[in-house]
Amino acid sequence: MSQAECRACRGDWPPAAAFIAACGSAKAYLHDDQFFPGWTVLVLDRHVTELYELDGGERGALMEAVSDVARALASVYGAVKMNYELLGNQLPHIHWHLIPRTADDPIPRAPVWTLPHEPRALAPGEQRTRIEAIRAQLR
Amino acid sequence: MSQAECRACRGDWPPAAAFIAACGSAKAYLHDDQFFPGWTVLVLDRHVTELYELDGGERGALMEAVSDVARALASVYGAVKMNYELLGNQLPHIHWHLIPRTADDPIPRAPVWTLPHEPRALAPGEQRTRIEAIRAQLR
Repeated sequence: MSQAECRACRGDWPPAAAFIAACGSAKAYLHDDQFFPGWTVLVLDRHVTELYELDGGERGALMEAVSDVARALASVYGAVKMNYELLGNQLPHIHWHLIPRTADDPIPRAPVWTLPHEPRALAPGEQRTRIEAIRAQLR
Repeated sequence: MSQAECRACRGDWPPAAAFIAACGSAKAYLHDDQFFPGWTVLVLDRHVTELYELDGGERGALMEAVSDVARALASVYGAVKMNYELLGNQLPHIHWHLIPRTADDPIPRAPVWTLPHEPRALAPGEQRTRIEAIRAQLR
């Protein structure tokens, strides 16, 4: 996939209203689907596909951002476990799925992908409140 | 979960025959289920649950190992994309799932967890051959 074809590079995804924070060379956004509350995507600014295609310094900085955002999400959402996933099967532009798993999770022992469900979009006000809460933990 | 209750700390998992290589503070093993060929787990030596509970140096070293193993697997298995997943929903001892996704993958656009299947164990000779091939790429 070229950068011209990439939704992340074109700015078509994620939507601007979901923006949480810039974290070094990546940006965090609340995921469109909040069925699992707090699901966040951390999108690398530049178009790279694999972790091993970054140089060591870039990779280290990205992973510090992953760690910082995961810690903030765990705090805001009361996670019993965080899930960290870099897949890119549909969009091969590095973006981490960071998913708080909570005590009242419908499938606490399984990956989120195993539960078919209708995506849950937040109302704009609720989305802003959630984003502010995450930002406050990132400071 | 205490270390005494942890299968990874007790040495009950992964099985020794699946050992690929020591990578700094973690060890790589071929996953029991080879339905998706090359699925590897990289298990941290010590009992830590979340990425943000490691200090920066440990986290950086672990992610260099993740990157090195992923690169080796991509080469051996001809991956079109690597998947990198740190979940711990069942075993909260840091272990990365590193999964080569190939052109003849049955579900190339979806996470591996969405395809129910019978686990595929390799015959011992095939397992050894695969492990040797991965080791050769890690050198």
